[in-house]
Amino acid sequence: MNPSSTSLRVRLPALVLVLEVILLVLYSFFVTYDDNANAKMQNNMTIPMDNSLYRDYPYFADVQVMIFVGFGCLLAFLRFYGFSGMVFNFLTATFSIQWAILVQGYFQFYQDGKIHLGVINLINAEFACAVVLISFGAVLGKTSPVQLLVMAFLEVPFFSVTEWAVLKYIRVNDAGGSIVIHLFACYFGLGVTFVLYRPNLNNGHSKEITSYHSDILSVLGTLFLWVFWPSFNSSLTLKGDDQHRAVLHTFIGLSSSTMTAFALSAVFNKKGKLTMADIQNVTLAGGVTVGASVDMMISPAAAYALGVLGCTACFLGYRYLTPFMAQRLRIQDQCGIHNLHGLTGLISCTAGICAILLATEETYGPSMYEIFAHRSPPEGDPKLLALRQLIPGLKAGLGRSAEEQALYQVAAIFTTIAAAAVGGVVTGFVLKLPCLASPADDDCFDDALFFHMPTDFYTEGQG
Amino acid sequence: MNPSSTSLRVRLPALVLVLEVILLVLYSFFVTYDDNANAKMQNNMTIPMDNSLYRDYPYFADVQVMIFVGFGCLLAFLRFYGFSGMVFNFLTATFSIQWAILVQGYFQFYQDGKIHLGVINLINAEFACAVVLISFGAVLGKTSPVQLLVMAFLEVPFFSVTEWAVLKYIRVNDAGGSIVIHLFACYFGLGVTFVLYRPNLNNGHSKEITSYHSDILSVLGTLFLWVFWPSFNSSLTLKGDDQHRAVLHTFIGLSSSTMTAFALSAVFNKKGKLTMADIQNVTLAGGVTVGASVDMMISPAAAYALGVLGCTACFLGYRYLTPFMAQRLRIQDQCGIHNLHGLTGLISCTAGICAILLATEETYGPSMYEIFAHRSPPEGDPKLLALRQLIPGLKAGLGRSAEEQALYQVAAIFTTIAAAAVGGVVTGFVLKLPCLASPADDDCFDDALFFHMPTDFYTEGQG
Amino acid sequence: MNPSSTSLRVRLPALVLVLEVILLVLYSFFVTYDDNANAKMQNNMTIPMDNSLYRDYPYFADVQVMIFVGFGCLLAFLRFYGFSGMVFNFLTATFSIQWAILVQGYFQFYQDGKIHLGVINLINAEFACAVVLISFGAVLGKTSPVQLLVMAFLEVPFFSVTEWAVLKYIRVNDAGGSIVIHLFACYFGLGVTFVLYRPNLNNGHSKEITSYHSDILSVLGTLFLWVFWPSFNSSLTLKGDDQHRAVLHTFIGLSSSTMTAFALSAVFNKKGKLTMADIQNVTLAGGVTVGASVDMMISPAAAYALGVLGCTACFLGYRYLTPFMAQRLRIQDQCGIHNLHGLTGLISCTAGICAILLATEETYGPSMYEIFAHRSPPEGDPKLLALRQLIPGLKAGLGRSAEEQALYQVAAIFTTIAAAAVGGVVTGFVLKLPCLASPADDDCFDDALFFHMPTDFYTEGQG
Repeated sequence: MNPSSTSLRVRLPALVLVLEVILLVLYSFFVTYDDNANAKMQNNMTIPMDNSLYRDYPYFADVQVMIFVGFGCLLAFLRFYGFSGMVFNFLTATFSIQWAILVQGYFQFYQDGKIHLGVINLINAEFACAVVLISFGAVLGKTSPVQLLVMAFLEVPFFSVTEWAVLKYIRVNDAGGSIVIHLFACYFGLGVTFVLYRPNLNNGHSKEITSYHSDILSVLGTLFLWVFWPSFNSSLTLKGDDQHRAVLHTFIGLSSSTMTAFALSAVFNKKGKLTMADIQNVTLAGGVTVGASVDMMISPAAAYALGVLGCTACFLGYRYLTPFMAQRLRIQDQCGIHNLHGLTGLISCTAGICAILLATEETYGPSMYEIFAHRSPPEGDPKLLALRQLIPGLKAGLGRSAEEQALYQVAAIFTTIAAAAVGGVVTGFVLKLPCLASPADDDCFDDALFFHMPTDFYTEGQG
Repeated sequence: MNPSSTSLRVRLPALVLVLEVILLVLYSFFVTYDDNANAKMQNNMTIPMDNSLYRDYPYFADVQVMIFVGFGCLLAFLRFYGFSGMVFNFLTATFSIQWAILVQGYFQFYQDGKIHLGVINLINAEFACAVVLISFGAVLGKTSPVQLLVMAFLEVPFFSVTEWAVLKYIRVNDAGGSIVIHLFACYFGLGVTFVLYRPNLNNGHSKEITSYHSDILSVLGTLFLWVFWPSFNSSLTLKGDDQHRAVLHTFIGLSSSTMTAFALSAVFNKKGKLTMADIQNVTLAGGVTVGASVDMMISPAAAYALGVLGCTACFLGYRYLTPFMAQRLRIQDQCGIHNLHGLTGLISCTAGICAILLATEETYGPSMYEIFAHRSPPEGDPKLLALRQLIPGLKAGLGRSAEEQALYQVAAIFTTIAAAAVGGVVTGFVLKLPCLASPADDDCFDDALFFHMPTDFYTEGQG
Repeated sequence: MNPSSTSLRVRLPALVLVLEVILLVLYSFFVTYDDNANAKMQNNMTIPMDNSLYRDYPYFADVQVMIFVGFGCLLAFLRFYGFSGMVFNFLTATFSIQWAILVQGYFQFYQDGKIHLGVINLINAEFACAVVLISFGAVLGKTSPVQLLVMAFLEVPFFSVTEWAVLKYIRVNDAGGSIVIHLFACYFGLGVTFVLYRPNLNNGHSKEITSYHSDILSVLGTLFLWVFWPSFNSSLTLKGDDQHRAVLHTFIGLSSSTMTAFALSAVFNKKGKLTMADIQNVTLAGGVTVGASVDMMISPAAAYALGVLGCTACFLGYRYLTPFMAQRLRIQDQCGIHNLHGLTGLISCTAGICAILLATEETYGPSMYEIFAHRSPPEGDPKLLALRQLIPGLKAGLGRSAEEQALYQVAAIFTTIAAAAVGGVVTGFVLKLPCLASPADDDCFDDALFFHMPTDFYTEGQG
């Protein structure tokens, strides 16, 4: 096997076979059903409609559409790379979820020597999958499916460990995943693309263009992401009013972000025309920006303002920061994930910290100690008993003050960014190994490298 | 700024800025959470899964797909106007919902000086948004995004006042929104397009054509609208059996309408071939036609017949009425909204009146007074007490007879049509103001006017 | 009317008119609301949110997307047959559901001289519709819409009788419909295409090719099917843990199947490239393969293995069996339904039988007698009373042993295949009747035969 070849004939099947054997062995020995999916756990007190399936499945299904259809179409925005964008997304997502079920399961759903599997694990695994797909955006067009599978194989454990450390030890409020998902995914992806730097592509590539149909397909992906983003941001909040607020804030943030994106797109174009790339990406910034405070009582107006702010930062990032990073920092960020997930993620985290500092019992009532669970008094504290009169079953917390919680949020942000960047750089070096079918510079952004193409591809393309 | 220019560079950002400032100020001062989204309103009796979110969100999500994906794709049916159809729909929809939250909120969700916001408001706002998008169909291809935003800015208040007057004062049964949504949207749009009459376009325009891909994209939009229409028609009914019937009737009406559309398309084509425009539009007529009686006990067979009837009227309207209106009445109805929403809406209203006149306690049981709430006896009437034995918590009504209710329905129809037409004409004159970037006749139906186009647009188009 | 003509001008409207009159008359006389949709059945004990609508509608809506959008896009994979694939699917599906509501209703929902209609009937009817659409895959490109309606008109009763016989008399476990849906649909379709054999097409047809855009559209259909398949496989299971497992198994089976499909696609291509047809079809094999045992305690690892196994069989079928069947057995299986539904269905049935033989109370607890309802002791058996202590309301069964149940499963498989094949052959002969507008060999795979085409169709196609 010639290391410089890009034939998938041996490489891809060999890798898939190894991965499938690993997965099948681990599933056989370590994965069982959780109580809600286990026939043996049902008894004469079980009410079938109280099964956790009915709480979790609608959100899972919505996130599925985002992952497979939304991301898939969005990443098909290049004229000669539509097959690859859509189909490599499919492959990478599928593998990432299978793998995350195991790795996240080990950290979060492991009891008595088994990972207990229910739809809630699938939602968590789809979040890990979203992390991989965001990072994929940084290297789109320049990587083989073999490299993408290896990246997913490494990123999922890096992510799961970081997520587990942040949630279990630092203990943060991050319902929409701004820290854990968006910042991690962004800086991991930048780490990978930093190592995979291709100087010849800094002046553009003849195939790095869109077409009328690829632009429409991509905006269709944007619309699916837009429509279901409230489900994404609210799928792991507490149930009830918290989830209700998460839906409202996400919708409002996306809405104001969308209007802003149209305005900025027109004002920065010399002829005063709209650019489809802005509509495809910048409109979504609001969804990320409200993430960290999505379940808090920030007020609808604050969600509105966050959407405008995040969108503006994202837009300016695309315009000024992405070219600067490519030219000066050798970070080629193909889809501009640093704008849509990094800058907006940082704004979101800052807003989350402000919301934490401003949270009072006056605004939240006693349920403040549910939302900010770590501010709940510790076990044995008489205040906990008093609160449990108001909220039966309130969990004991760590008795943190607002300021302490804010500092932990800051710690989590830096920890996540550092872990992600290191993980990304390490992964980047692994992806440079020969035999991973990395495309030559000339063959980037070209479906024909890895796909058997229909005949009209060539006449359309070169004709 | 040259008034005849169509550059969006100053106009669109300036308008968006003004709108966003207005929205942000109003959200800040007047919008708060409703009880189901307010942490402070939760107490030790709150059951999280009883939150209204879980009743409303599935229908909201389905309507979201209709608004953004369904309408977006459907309106992208023109060969050189796909970007505009899809993306102006996105912009207009986003703004309309934000604005309707405020305006409708003022009329319907205003208490103690605040608009109380929950997912139920979003559903209502999406209905207002659907009204704007239907009207948009009348002027598609001939309006700038600036004009569309101004139209939405004016139409939402016109609609909200009419809706409020009809629902609160005339008090009608109109679960599927045939009167309030479809008739209003239709006659408002016709009013606008009447004022914006372009005589030069009456003989067609060289770019007013479809392409193979635009037709497929548009039919994809139709399919999404078709699939989720039962959610649209049932999202504001009473819960329980009423909503169940609304789903069934909508599905049956759409089904019979679809078969009929295929038959009519073939029979009216000289070569006996099918026309995609019919499949894209006429198949949906049944969804509107069952609207006004969608929650009543009209029988499945009646829903079936309504689908056939509405589809036939809609088809004949496209064939004969639309050209007549354009040639003789100077009403250029680009997407034929008078056929799909006007004629079908009138049939639907007539069917609703018949269903009201035929409703008896024998068919409905005592829950007749829930569905036809205005026929419920007034407070103090001994019959109300008797009924409350059968239906605990039955609301007092106005004690109307079936005939009285039918007359109020007629009044509502005429009121709505008159208000819509007047509002549309007024809005049309506002849209004629200079500085709104109205396209010249030659530039209609052309994405290149407002978008930075990918290079293949020109070779495909003119080559 | 010239029998060899393919004009739809008289044929299609005449057929639709006849069908609609039949449907309308039968709906008028025989269809009423079920108790959950009947206003009169509501009383002062009714809790609206307990209406069956809320249990059934989410699954119905997901299956709707699969039927209309998923199948529609998937079947639009041919370059010159996109309109037909998508739109004939729309017509056939719409009619099949209307008709299945009546025919299945007669067998399954008939009481007191009426078919009682609720959303649950619609789900069942959509399954019947899926059967017709799968069979349609065998004859795609070679049939007129008139023929397709006639096929649906005949297949729905054949299917409903078989389904009823298998479920009511043989009594099988088949939650995902592997026997009743996939095997029936496959062998019925093969029967039809066997009779409609076109020897001239065995060496291919110049229009039997894909294009860049048709391949992307088709993979979009695959993604929608993939995403909502867990809803399909779980929509008719018992509620609670059974449905939960069905979701998990389907997701896992599809995931392992997808990875395997990529590997096989690469290994069997001489240049080591991926083929879109494999991504479009073979990835879905896992969804069928887990079907028969989808609600059983087979373990997540077994679902994983079934996905790999089904995918491999399906892939090899496409590669070796489909050409063999066309050349030697005169069975031209256009979309390869024998691979995606037949081979996988047989594996699924085998797995289901193994799961039945291995089922013990140790694994399932007493709820074994709910899942394997026919193994529940018969009325009067003291064991039934003992079990009812553990599971209140357990239904009496037939007291079958595991081995007996397994034999009945085998009987059901053979019965279904035989009934389907006979029904398919009979239907095939009916479809050969003149006047059904069957396309000439040369006109196969060509939208222009039955559609008024946009002008770019010809320039793109022949240019």
